[in-house]
Amino acid sequence: MSNFLQEFEDERKTSGRKKLGEKCGVFGVYGHPEASTMVALGLHALQHRGQEASGIVSYDGDNFYSKRALGLVDQTFNQKDVIDRLKGYLAVGHNRYATTGETLYRNIQPLYADLALGGFALGQNGNLTNARTIRQELVEHGALFQSTTDTEVFIHLVAASRKPTIHERLAEAMQQAEGGYSIVACAEDTLIGARDKHGIRPLALGKLNDSWFLASETCAFDIISAEFVREIEPGEMVVINKNGIKSYFPHKGNPKRFCIFEYIYFARPDSFMENRSVYEMRKAIGAELAKESPVENADLVVPVPDSGIPSAIGYAEAAKLPFELGIIRNHYVGRTFIEPTDQIRHLGVKLKHNANRAYLEDKIVILVDDSIVRGTTSRKIVDMVRQAGAKEVHVRISSPPTKHSCFYGIDTPSSEELLANSHDVDEICKIIHADSLAYVTTDGLYKALGEVKRNGEDRKFCDACFTGDYPVRLTDLLDQKMSKRVTELG
Amino acid sequence: MSNFLQEFEDERKTSGRKKLGEKCGVFGVYGHPEASTMVALGLHALQHRGQEASGIVSYDGDNFYSKRALGLVDQTFNQKDVIDRLKGYLAVGHNRYATTGETLYRNIQPLYADLALGGFALGQNGNLTNARTIRQELVEHGALFQSTTDTEVFIHLVAASRKPTIHERLAEAMQQAEGGYSIVACAEDTLIGARDKHGIRPLALGKLNDSWFLASETCAFDIISAEFVREIEPGEMVVINKNGIKSYFPHKGNPKRFCIFEYIYFARPDSFMENRSVYEMRKAIGAELAKESPVENADLVVPVPDSGIPSAIGYAEAAKLPFELGIIRNHYVGRTFIEPTDQIRHLGVKLKHNANRAYLEDKIVILVDDSIVRGTTSRKIVDMVRQAGAKEVHVRISSPPTKHSCFYGIDTPSSEELLANSHDVDEICKIIHADSLAYVTTDGLYKALGEVKRNGEDRKFCDACFTGDYPVRLTDLLDQKMSKRVTELG
Amino acid sequence: MSNFLQEFEDERKTSGRKKLGEKCGVFGVYGHPEASTMVALGLHALQHRGQEASGIVSYDGDNFYSKRALGLVDQTFNQKDVIDRLKGYLAVGHNRYATTGETLYRNIQPLYADLALGGFALGQNGNLTNARTIRQELVEHGALFQSTTDTEVFIHLVAASRKPTIHERLAEAMQQAEGGYSIVACAEDTLIGARDKHGIRPLALGKLNDSWFLASETCAFDIISAEFVREIEPGEMVVINKNGIKSYFPHKGNPKRFCIFEYIYFARPDSFMENRSVYEMRKAIGAELAKESPVENADLVVPVPDSGIPSAIGYAEAAKLPFELGIIRNHYVGRTFIEPTDQIRHLGVKLKHNANRAYLEDKIVILVDDSIVRGTTSRKIVDMVRQAGAKEVHVRISSPPTKHSCFYGIDTPSSEELLANSHDVDEICKIIHADSLAYVTTDGLYKALGEVKRNGEDRKFCDACFTGDYPVRLTDLLDQKMSKRVTELG
Amino acid sequence: MSNFLQEFEDERKTSGRKKLGEKCGVFGVYGHPEASTMVALGLHALQHRGQEASGIVSYDGDNFYSKRALGLVDQTFNQKDVIDRLKGYLAVGHNRYATTGETLYRNIQPLYADLALGGFALGQNGNLTNARTIRQELVEHGALFQSTTDTEVFIHLVAASRKPTIHERLAEAMQQAEGGYSIVACAEDTLIGARDKHGIRPLALGKLNDSWFLASETCAFDIISAEFVREIEPGEMVVINKNGIKSYFPHKGNPKRFCIFEYIYFARPDSFMENRSVYEMRKAIGAELAKESPVENADLVVPVPDSGIPSAIGYAEAAKLPFELGIIRNHYVGRTFIEPTDQIRHLGVKLKHNANRAYLEDKIVILVDDSIVRGTTSRKIVDMVRQAGAKEVHVRISSPPTKHSCFYGIDTPSSEELLANSHDVDEICKIIHADSLAYVTTDGLYKALGEVKRNGEDRKFCDACFTGDYPVRLTDLLDQKMSKRVTELG
Repeated sequence: MSNFLQEFEDERKTSGRKKLGEKCGVFGVYGHPEASTMVALGLHALQHRGQEASGIVSYDGDNFYSKRALGLVDQTFNQKDVIDRLKGYLAVGHNRYATTGETLYRNIQPLYADLALGGFALGQNGNLTNARTIRQELVEHGALFQSTTDTEVFIHLVAASRKPTIHERLAEAMQQAEGGYSIVACAEDTLIGARDKHGIRPLALGKLNDSWFLASETCAFDIISAEFVREIEPGEMVVINKNGIKSYFPHKGNPKRFCIFEYIYFARPDSFMENRSVYEMRKAIGAELAKESPVENADLVVPVPDSGIPSAIGYAEAAKLPFELGIIRNHYVGRTFIEPTDQIRHLGVKLKHNANRAYLEDKIVILVDDSIVRGTTSRKIVDMVRQAGAKEVHVRISSPPTKHSCFYGIDTPSSEELLANSHDVDEICKIIHADSLAYVTTDGLYKALGEVKRNGEDRKFCDACFTGDYPVRLTDLLDQKMSKRVTELG
Repeated sequence: MSNFLQEFEDERKTSGRKKLGEKCGVFGVYGHPEASTMVALGLHALQHRGQEASGIVSYDGDNFYSKRALGLVDQTFNQKDVIDRLKGYLAVGHNRYATTGETLYRNIQPLYADLALGGFALGQNGNLTNARTIRQELVEHGALFQSTTDTEVFIHLVAASRKPTIHERLAEAMQQAEGGYSIVACAEDTLIGARDKHGIRPLALGKLNDSWFLASETCAFDIISAEFVREIEPGEMVVINKNGIKSYFPHKGNPKRFCIFEYIYFARPDSFMENRSVYEMRKAIGAELAKESPVENADLVVPVPDSGIPSAIGYAEAAKLPFELGIIRNHYVGRTFIEPTDQIRHLGVKLKHNANRAYLEDKIVILVDDSIVRGTTSRKIVDMVRQAGAKEVHVRISSPPTKHSCFYGIDTPSSEELLANSHDVDEICKIIHADSLAYVTTDGLYKALGEVKRNGEDRKFCDACFTGDYPVRLTDLLDQKMSKRVTELG
Repeated sequence: MSNFLQEFEDERKTSGRKKLGEKCGVFGVYGHPEASTMVALGLHALQHRGQEASGIVSYDGDNFYSKRALGLVDQTFNQKDVIDRLKGYLAVGHNRYATTGETLYRNIQPLYADLALGGFALGQNGNLTNARTIRQELVEHGALFQSTTDTEVFIHLVAASRKPTIHERLAEAMQQAEGGYSIVACAEDTLIGARDKHGIRPLALGKLNDSWFLASETCAFDIISAEFVREIEPGEMVVINKNGIKSYFPHKGNPKRFCIFEYIYFARPDSFMENRSVYEMRKAIGAELAKESPVENADLVVPVPDSGIPSAIGYAEAAKLPFELGIIRNHYVGRTFIEPTDQIRHLGVKLKHNANRAYLEDKIVILVDDSIVRGTTSRKIVDMVRQAGAKEVHVRISSPPTKHSCFYGIDTPSSEELLANSHDVDEICKIIHADSLAYVTTDGLYKALGEVKRNGEDRKFCDACFTGDYPVRLTDLLDQKMSKRVTELG
Repeated sequence: MSNFLQEFEDERKTSGRKKLGEKCGVFGVYGHPEASTMVALGLHALQHRGQEASGIVSYDGDNFYSKRALGLVDQTFNQKDVIDRLKGYLAVGHNRYATTGETLYRNIQPLYADLALGGFALGQNGNLTNARTIRQELVEHGALFQSTTDTEVFIHLVAASRKPTIHERLAEAMQQAEGGYSIVACAEDTLIGARDKHGIRPLALGKLNDSWFLASETCAFDIISAEFVREIEPGEMVVINKNGIKSYFPHKGNPKRFCIFEYIYFARPDSFMENRSVYEMRKAIGAELAKESPVENADLVVPVPDSGIPSAIGYAEAAKLPFELGIIRNHYVGRTFIEPTDQIRHLGVKLKHNANRAYLEDKIVILVDDSIVRGTTSRKIVDMVRQAGAKEVHVRISSPPTKHSCFYGIDTPSSEELLANSHDVDEICKIIHADSLAYVTTDGLYKALGEVKRNGEDRKFCDACFTGDYPVRLTDLLDQKMSKRVTELG
């Protein structure tokens, strides 16, 4: 085998890079005496949506307090003195997974600014598709940008607006900003939540006694025993202050196009999206896949852990086959490992996964995973299962082929790096050394989610990564080459 | 609920403290040009056996090289310059989980000493039951101890021996040391592996081309594609050098009493022990438990993740019930979290687990876990499942009640802290708020492992934690009060 | 003695806090292939002007590179990989000593911004007296500030200007900004240096082969063997690019009012200011002091090390008395030390200085220091000298009494904390336990600097800290109470 | 100039390496309620004797407490919680400057051991000349060494002794150990101080109320206002416990041979040694040098700071010439700096010193320094002074030529690296580019110290570095090649 080097290096990268990347997570609280603790707990539950950095901004009626740092939520916000200094009954927080902008301290959200109307902090989950275009215009008029994030565009649009209140200014900004995004923002005595006009990115509203909460996923309400109230609507902005909650619609009448990949991989299985259990949907996709692409004489169904487990259970149940943990994951894989020499490379070192030999020997194995990005991990796992004695290895994928990059806040490789962009299923099957390969169909996917099939006139979801059908135009893409002007050393 | 404080604090502790603690892991290599890389990979695969510190000592024909540090293997041995400086074809390594001795730098193994016969390094997985007694004698004769580990007793016994060779000296030391232990040691051009007279702790021999390997578990051979040759026998010492491998028996003729808890919880499921697949044994115990203690009208089987998964699959298959991930684990739980205030405590914060509500509502749930130590985690999980809507919660445990402390290298609370030591099954059932509770019987456990039942005359395993039947006498226990004389600040 | 606590705590603070604080240091290079190394060396030589943080921004013809960090220059810029990544032939650097703005990462200079005209970086030595006023106006118009430094005002004024070139924009900004400051700035292929209209803060021009340099003090040219060309004039701006150096005068015709305290304490003794040797001036002040305030029958002259040494030598020479190191300084005093208990406090612990007993016993001692700020250090030293056996202790200060705060870039306590603001010389003499106390007169000080005496019509220097005669109006002072809106946790 | 590279690299090294190295410092306390604070303060005053690491061991009547760490005293012992945990009324401390043994954690003193007689801690200032020989014997008998320091030999000799008390055991150990050393040790309720038979290394006894102190230098008593009682005698051991202080003489009747270099460079100028003021002795040597080697028509005397200052003052007074700070030292020089490229090297970068040009131009300069080790620093300084315009540069050295290595605890280069070992004064004068060069004569040095001249029969001092006349035999030197067996990575 000649490509161990590539595989080994792949192995050394974080899983996020081999999978489509998680997006960011946002959380906001109004009316709780320990607001920053609530946010820290909420961000903890949303850690899977961003592990690079996190931040909290709080407001106590007089002042704002801010803490932002690289690393996991637990590393920054686990100390009493940090939380104690983030005083107040109102707070917003953000988990960051770099989508645009390098991971610099000044890019960590929520971003804060002193506006003429007072302090203002904002965190975004998603991505703007015309950020560079707007930014350039603002700079022409003398604006100074402190970060390289598209989120700062919101802050500048709010600062430059002539409207009399913060929320009217933010509504104006939302009308200029294109893309897929959810926002939590905090001004003096005001918590704001908002969602892009198609509702591509998720945002939910929760309640516990007199406190209001906003979160990317409902699992963040569970951790603090808050009640899930409803989702923020596409194009909606909610404004929460001492007078209660009010709803505004800077955008109205646009069809909902929720990100279908949240169901497939991003969201936590214990979250609910659009009143659907994510876990249940994953099992349903697995079942659909079993119906569409069965394997004759198969002995068992094996998930690629951990993300493939629910769809594998669904597949096994539908196919009436045993479900077994045929691949064991090592939970202690750090970010980097020893630089491999030729000697080592030839071993095909298995840092992250190991085959559970006892259950694979002489078996016809169905391997279930959620997606194939570059194909290197899949091939390595197929090889490993085969080395452990499997007679046949049939790969089943619980999403259609990923052919197109996402521009709405998900970290995808460029289209050229996506294996399915340039190879058909048969070619991919050979590349990953499988005996057979099948993806769930787009219609099958929609069926699992309760639709009859994909309807080109009323598509319900954003499925651009499979179909190339982008619901929001990609303005900045025309001007890809705008050079970065400063390299800040970490 | 009045005991949230305790629960919250429990939650903040590491899982290892709430479970019986993993022991240490050892790994050795002879005859590989990149011996220290091999050891780093082996220790990575054995990381679940000890996360507090790790060390490697290598030998290149002329000199010894040593690196020991607190933290995970990946944190210390992922840098080229560290590995490059650990030169040689012979190396031994150790993952540490403190059993005796605080976690001080000088306690990190392998310990190294310059003996009159040359350099000598040794790492131990296990615990001596007469370490203090021997130590006291040695100190009376002028010996200076550099660590507070029992492992150093071996080094001193070897240093003080009058035998002409290192391996004869080590054999002599083994005859004086009582307890449950596996050893890897390294002298000039010599790799040594040894196991206590009852084979309580595991040690396996592997091979890859001309290189020999020793490891606590076979999964450490898989990571480097080495072949599993055989286990080291109880009381056996193997000596590997340029003349090949030779076997000695410092102890002969003692019955094997392998630690039964390795099957239940400690070992990785992809490892083989005594030619049994650990995963398969766990499923078999789950199946046995289903036979012994079924639940009428149950709707589904839910594992307490991750350790309860294999036995839950076994239970579900035997009971012909659906297996579902009804509890989702947050993989990002750090070592500590925010100091809880009263406000927070009343929320019953769920940092580590969350109920998967969609599958629990109105269901009769069978919850499968491997053991109950103090009961606080179990109660919390039962409460959480019930809060998520379960109609009934029946707990099934894939081990007999844990009543007695281990003195052979496993971190157990003192007997008084073990819930089953002072409460019967009915009482425990009430404490954890379950509708019913059942443990697998000792005979059922033996049956799952292929025996007819537990035979008091020929017990096959060390099951002292369940039965109190200790295979090796507990010499030091008589002299519990020997005071620690120096407190070294970390 | 009842005030040991205060003394001990004083002792624990850094010397900069007990002295009037050093200001910042700036350094710039144009046309050197290793520009960032040159800046690192220049900043090293200027380290005494700011020890809290430092930064370098470089330009290589295409891109800008930036590195800013807390700590000493040597701690940040001593590593090859940092310097290697700061590519280019043009670079500016800054040593920071907090005058306004807490020491946050985002306050570390040079500040960088992407303007419509391209990248722009600027570092300032000094302080603006109307920064808050301008800032408020800019924020009203939608400007977002990223730091709490007054330096950012310059960046925003340049960004908002409608002039066609960077240097014309900066000239416009200088016309709006009031205060005492020197600037180094860097745009694409352009190095700019500028000085406030009265030349309160220093800035010098140097040359080495084809490279141009700008530095706060000439000692920074010596370290790289560059030649001192001339000082930048009050109100002057020099623009250096591929066409050579050009001089502009945004301000013209204002009298020079150079900071007289640079001669007394701030500047390094080996620097030249206004063609005067700083060391020579200090000796001259000491000599003048000896003439004005001799001590009868004195045995020896002892400097308070290190800053009192040159004036003590000057005094001793003029008084024809022996000069002796009667006080020895411990160079290893760190930033903090053990929290003192009552027990310890009563010892009068001498962390930083010790009396050289051999030379003090039974002697009439003249103690020479450069200034008295709060008096606690002076009293402690007088007591220490007396305890060591001195018969009489006469204190001589080589500056007039410090009565007024500085608003042009020097860290002074508020007026109320300045001992001389509320006490006359006799009172201070008693407070510090001296047998006699004398300060050099203002006229004596001017005489030492080559003037006949202080001339109220043509004052030549800024001596506001002694006289309260401020050359630039203190606009912001009227609006002291503008609240800080966000507290960023470090 | 062709050797800038060497000079630059020299510049990057610490001053300690270019000078003869400071030795270690020791401090002990008996009978003070805050013993560890006292030790921390004492070690702070002795910081100049060792900057690599420090440690404190304390005893509170029941237990011992130990803290050892790399870095300065202030970095480790400036925190309340560290000091608070070092409980007790009895404590010993050590500042380390590596003389033997790499700087590993386990080499940091005081070393501690649990002996059969109880806890025992020991710190040493000095070096044994038969450590390896003794160590080898002990290892043959089964002893395990935990460090690579010679100090551990004392601990093992005490452990192996059959005497009934700790102090008798230590006395026995002192009779076996050869070399130059001072010891502070601490056992249960016992503080011990001891000095080698010739008193080569210093040790002084102090008192404050009911507390006893031991320190390498008297300046450590000043910092806590303790009174200097007397020096420990050559070969003496003092034992301090609840019964008071008792004196023993393991060695009796050997002539005193105190290290003469303590007067020249090592000790702090404010310390007293053998009732002589170190500062006064340095001035006296300078005066003697002026008499022996005047310079005709010289304009001024310039010290190489800081160590050359007292002898330069002495020279200037005797020669009736002005004393001027013609060289300014940068106090911010860190341990390392930018890797020099050829470009940079040609600049002759002056990181540490700069010429004070104003006073050197057209002058005949006398440069006074305490010693020349390799000559590179001296040449660089002479060149720098000349470049600043000096007409002539005459170098005067306040010690005889350093020709021989020290084996009694001072870090000297090997003899081959000592310039004076292979070159006469004329050659050295040329190498350092001086117009003339003179060292004080050995007789002149003795004269300055109050002797008539050096008397070969009754030499009073150890002056082996100048004369090669070693008072203690160099046993280990015969067996230089014993290999180091383990390389421990830091």
